[in-house]
Amino acid sequence: MKFQGEDFCLKNETAKLLYNKYAKALPIIDYHCHLDPKDIYEDKVFNSLSELWLSGDHYKWRLMRANGVAEEYITGKGDDNKKLHYWAETLENCIGNPVYAWCHMELKKYFDYEGVLDKKTADDVISWCEKYFKEGRISARKLIEESKVTHICTTDDPVSDLKWHRAIREDESFKTKVMPSWRPDGILGIEKESFKEYIEKLGRVTGIKIECLEDLKTATVKRIEFFNENGCRVSDHGLEECFKVEKSPDADDIFKKVLEGYNPTEEECIKYKGEMLLFMAGEYVKHNWAMQLHYGCSRNVNTKLYKLLGADTGIDCINPCAPSRNLAVMLDGFLKEDKLPKTIVYSLDPSENDAIDTIIGCFQGLGKGYIQHGAAWWFNDHKKGIETHLESLGANGVLGNFIGMLTDSRSFVSYTRHDYFRRILCSLLGKWAEEGEYPLDEEALGNIIENICYYNASEYFGFK
Amino acid sequence: MKFQGEDFCLKNETAKLLYNKYAKALPIIDYHCHLDPKDIYEDKVFNSLSELWLSGDHYKWRLMRANGVAEEYITGKGDDNKKLHYWAETLENCIGNPVYAWCHMELKKYFDYEGVLDKKTADDVISWCEKYFKEGRISARKLIEESKVTHICTTDDPVSDLKWHRAIREDESFKTKVMPSWRPDGILGIEKESFKEYIEKLGRVTGIKIECLEDLKTATVKRIEFFNENGCRVSDHGLEECFKVEKSPDADDIFKKVLEGYNPTEEECIKYKGEMLLFMAGEYVKHNWAMQLHYGCSRNVNTKLYKLLGADTGIDCINPCAPSRNLAVMLDGFLKEDKLPKTIVYSLDPSENDAIDTIIGCFQGLGKGYIQHGAAWWFNDHKKGIETHLESLGANGVLGNFIGMLTDSRSFVSYTRHDYFRRILCSLLGKWAEEGEYPLDEEALGNIIENICYYNASEYFGFK
Amino acid sequence: MKFQGEDFCLKNETAKLLYNKYAKALPIIDYHCHLDPKDIYEDKVFNSLSELWLSGDHYKWRLMRANGVAEEYITGKGDDNKKLHYWAETLENCIGNPVYAWCHMELKKYFDYEGVLDKKTADDVISWCEKYFKEGRISARKLIEESKVTHICTTDDPVSDLKWHRAIREDESFKTKVMPSWRPDGILGIEKESFKEYIEKLGRVTGIKIECLEDLKTATVKRIEFFNENGCRVSDHGLEECFKVEKSPDADDIFKKVLEGYNPTEEECIKYKGEMLLFMAGEYVKHNWAMQLHYGCSRNVNTKLYKLLGADTGIDCINPCAPSRNLAVMLDGFLKEDKLPKTIVYSLDPSENDAIDTIIGCFQGLGKGYIQHGAAWWFNDHKKGIETHLESLGANGVLGNFIGMLTDSRSFVSYTRHDYFRRILCSLLGKWAEEGEYPLDEEALGNIIENICYYNASEYFGFK
Repeated sequence: MKFQGEDFCLKNETAKLLYNKYAKALPIIDYHCHLDPKDIYEDKVFNSLSELWLSGDHYKWRLMRANGVAEEYITGKGDDNKKLHYWAETLENCIGNPVYAWCHMELKKYFDYEGVLDKKTADDVISWCEKYFKEGRISARKLIEESKVTHICTTDDPVSDLKWHRAIREDESFKTKVMPSWRPDGILGIEKESFKEYIEKLGRVTGIKIECLEDLKTATVKRIEFFNENGCRVSDHGLEECFKVEKSPDADDIFKKVLEGYNPTEEECIKYKGEMLLFMAGEYVKHNWAMQLHYGCSRNVNTKLYKLLGADTGIDCINPCAPSRNLAVMLDGFLKEDKLPKTIVYSLDPSENDAIDTIIGCFQGLGKGYIQHGAAWWFNDHKKGIETHLESLGANGVLGNFIGMLTDSRSFVSYTRHDYFRRILCSLLGKWAEEGEYPLDEEALGNIIENICYYNASEYFGFK
Repeated sequence: MKFQGEDFCLKNETAKLLYNKYAKALPIIDYHCHLDPKDIYEDKVFNSLSELWLSGDHYKWRLMRANGVAEEYITGKGDDNKKLHYWAETLENCIGNPVYAWCHMELKKYFDYEGVLDKKTADDVISWCEKYFKEGRISARKLIEESKVTHICTTDDPVSDLKWHRAIREDESFKTKVMPSWRPDGILGIEKESFKEYIEKLGRVTGIKIECLEDLKTATVKRIEFFNENGCRVSDHGLEECFKVEKSPDADDIFKKVLEGYNPTEEECIKYKGEMLLFMAGEYVKHNWAMQLHYGCSRNVNTKLYKLLGADTGIDCINPCAPSRNLAVMLDGFLKEDKLPKTIVYSLDPSENDAIDTIIGCFQGLGKGYIQHGAAWWFNDHKKGIETHLESLGANGVLGNFIGMLTDSRSFVSYTRHDYFRRILCSLLGKWAEEGEYPLDEEALGNIIENICYYNASEYFGFK
Repeated sequence: MKFQGEDFCLKNETAKLLYNKYAKALPIIDYHCHLDPKDIYEDKVFNSLSELWLSGDHYKWRLMRANGVAEEYITGKGDDNKKLHYWAETLENCIGNPVYAWCHMELKKYFDYEGVLDKKTADDVISWCEKYFKEGRISARKLIEESKVTHICTTDDPVSDLKWHRAIREDESFKTKVMPSWRPDGILGIEKESFKEYIEKLGRVTGIKIECLEDLKTATVKRIEFFNENGCRVSDHGLEECFKVEKSPDADDIFKKVLEGYNPTEEECIKYKGEMLLFMAGEYVKHNWAMQLHYGCSRNVNTKLYKLLGADTGIDCINPCAPSRNLAVMLDGFLKEDKLPKTIVYSLDPSENDAIDTIIGCFQGLGKGYIQHGAAWWFNDHKKGIETHLESLGANGVLGNFIGMLTDSRSFVSYTRHDYFRRILCSLLGKWAEEGEYPLDEEALGNIIENICYYNASEYFGFK
């Protein structure tokens, strides 16, 4: 079979039909990513493959380190051309890695290059791609448009002025809707050194002197409304593990003490977070926002590299400590107070897929696909990870209501991952139908495919 | 391939041969279920598909909630016909779910309906099935007989008078043996509010004034003997997690204090339970009963629905907290005192399959297949769950000794799950043989299949 | 398909090509095993299949127990011939078990017997093999040479005089290099009753009166140098779980107190172990040794059999308690002090594969494939276990740098497991290439195969 040919990942005839007729041409909703709205507004132009691929992609950095490349040629000041050669040499060894697939899909989609990138071809690939860069064809907006992205939800701090989002909205030449997401990790991060400073900043932005929890809530509401006016429809939370959310009479005291320099205990942190997250969830319900909960990740575990390079540099990993142990308790906490928003749960530990799917099944009932188990995320975003996630959703819930793939990327060429996902999805559903698990009913199957690839997300987030 | 045709799940030629020649026609031993013996004795007649399918099946309720159906049309007083339409609409979205397979297998087996149930066909299906209900063909006994069930073990409380079991036994017109199982969760549930009341009831039933542990043991022995006389051959225990079982000099005091209103600590509960479970296990050994240990489940996690609907309403889930962590310690506790009965272990967390199979491998030796890892249970009772369980049994133990499928159901039409299991089993073993993992020796393979599907259970429980 | 024919496990055409052209004929590096160097030096001769297979193989003992064989015919004094018959009877039931594959691969490779071993053929197999034993063809050295093993790393105690290793080295007639591995569990085992006695022994061997930690370190360095001079290139550590390694000012006191009879707390044990393991790791770095970390195993969990038979008798199991929870913390501890050696991590819990691979990815950078996730180990050494491990390595790291299979065996006929591994590896890579995941580039694929099967290990351990 041709390498990444037309039928890439489409292992059966039904899969080919479903993909080509129903999935392939659909636009994309990118409801969770880390793109910079400034880059979009200014239509950032990329000048080389090395800049496009290696300047910010910690997936690739990790692989280069594992291949023994010196840091100078990864995140350092080494020669750009050499970096790319080291990358090509690394990639050659990465059989079975999703980055192998992604790189070649990106070369094909955005550069019309159909060959292989390896040590021997690296120079050819560089020179092939050169004209695309020189002609300015590799820019933020062009990549978004070429990828047919209708909606983008970036990740934003509550104190952000969202000026780039507004600027984009006012620019009628650009059709893709770019919306902020509410990521209030700063508000909840009472255990962090920077907490007091953050609260002061929030005070300045809202014009509220924040001295007690009530003030904080007032400020939070103000920002939520501001985000809502600017198109926000979804929040995002990064948690270590799930915890109990409930009203706490102590939260106000804890908050005040911490503002005065007190170092809270773990229990006090949970009390504060439980109170505040519950409060925010109530606001999400009011505005019909979805709430995203990401957990199960240990961050910056390599102290040495962290001191050298900072966060988001390829030193995060799965935390294998049952991070979902309190998911049921957490969801129950919201529901008891009638403050359970539409919720999307993501754990980084794939061994918890089945547990998560049975847990969310206990809290459904407020709407079609109300609680979602988010797409195979980060380290799990590979073929087997996607398949396993879909199989678990199918076995333990209503797969037809799944809102589908997210990009979760810092890169404008990552939209090929949606194509990868769609091929895997079609292949799995095609297999089931051909094996008699579901009728070989093209209309029904096509309908499910279209919903998972686009329409479920559109309806879930209220985009249509 | 035809939807659920003759070769459903049979993915290779050897599988087809094995299924059709060895598995298909075998009768069924239902050694673990939640059927009501009263229904069996009275030959309960069902009057509609809605009653048969939706009046008590929390698997379906969960899926309907996930599809956004209002509770009124799930467990509420909504119109029966409408409920079934909502169910059909939900089912259509449930690609990859075992309930999709089961529903259609049930329609085919008990109603000779070979088509698909979906939104469009719901009315046709209802009217097709109507005559079966009207003619009284859908009754407890008829369904059992049509399914060729030779033995049924229900789940019973030690205080039960077992009158329906006796009545069934005395009715010579009904050939299937219906036996009670001993489920003493009430006796062990010292942490429950209802404990004292339960012990009083046990006292009344046995005519013993239960004031100390010795009294409790005497009463327990009396009831075990009563159950044994009424055909009981197996006990069943629902545990949160595994714990250490050992003799405890404190257990008597703890028990007395609790009878007087004391609220025991977690440690005290374990001491009491360890002592009592060890004692009961000794009795099981005497009577050659098997002991079933079910764990890894969090129950009634949705407080709101629990208050509304009570237990067994679709609000239970997998507990992802290493529930097997003390399984080895527990089994060792029994063995040290020479009180390890034939034991069947079931965890709800499928990520522990391999661990469980290596653990039970340390405690074998008292008989062929003495310690069993029970069939993929509850939420794991789907194609991948069954395959994964069988693969783990094969890789880590002696698969040929497996006692096979259980139903674990409240429904009389769930016997099709045995057919599902048998097809999956034949497909897996056929694949192994065709790939050279085991000789293509029909006799040897057929023998293993027959044993797993029927004869191992028959021998294990002493039914033959 | 013929049972274990030429294409055994090779499920696609590319796999067949890769295996036959690149993998099949390669020699073997056995970098981790439990063979006795005395047996190698003396060229131990085996006299019967029963001796060869059943005298020390706890894999088989477990299966026989699970099949209900009496201990007399497993580890006891039962008749040799009868034992083998019981084994054959057991094996017949072991469909899906790797031992089924291994036994038949061993019969084929070392005895040219191509049939099946079962109850009916047991006598034929015994008499077929008899001449091989009588002619002395089944001896330690002959088996090693026939298996084309170039390097063997045994497992040795720091107090060992390594006389057999030296004797083998001086015997020029034997070409295979047999090197010791440094397994200092005794030095780290401060919680054990035998600790004081062990330290005294270490003192005697080194001529150092060990009274404080500094003395212990001096003695340790002396032995490491002795091992290094005798060819050692790798250490091995058996841990319950991972723990934090760091310098501890208390370690000296703890050590002294324990020598005087004090019973240390768990926290004190960790402090001592953290300090000493960190110290040793520094020595490994100096000598460019690799460090193996094995964990996730519960040992001797069946107290009754342990008292009867001792350790390594088939009573160990996977510990399902997130044994990797502190792996990142542990590796970070080494790196912070610039004492992270080349490291190979093995967990017995396969549900942690993905977590481990993402964790080690955070600590790469000191060399090509510097941190390795060791081959599917012990209970995971079956087809699915190997596949799952390789898939996870591929998805989360640079599979092309994997150092491949180890034997981890006490038996001289276990080298067939390398062949099993190679077939599975070729089948997986062939599948990926045929499905368009990697180019169908024979040279590139062949190169990866050869590296994983031999050359990566050779380079990693510095054998070439």
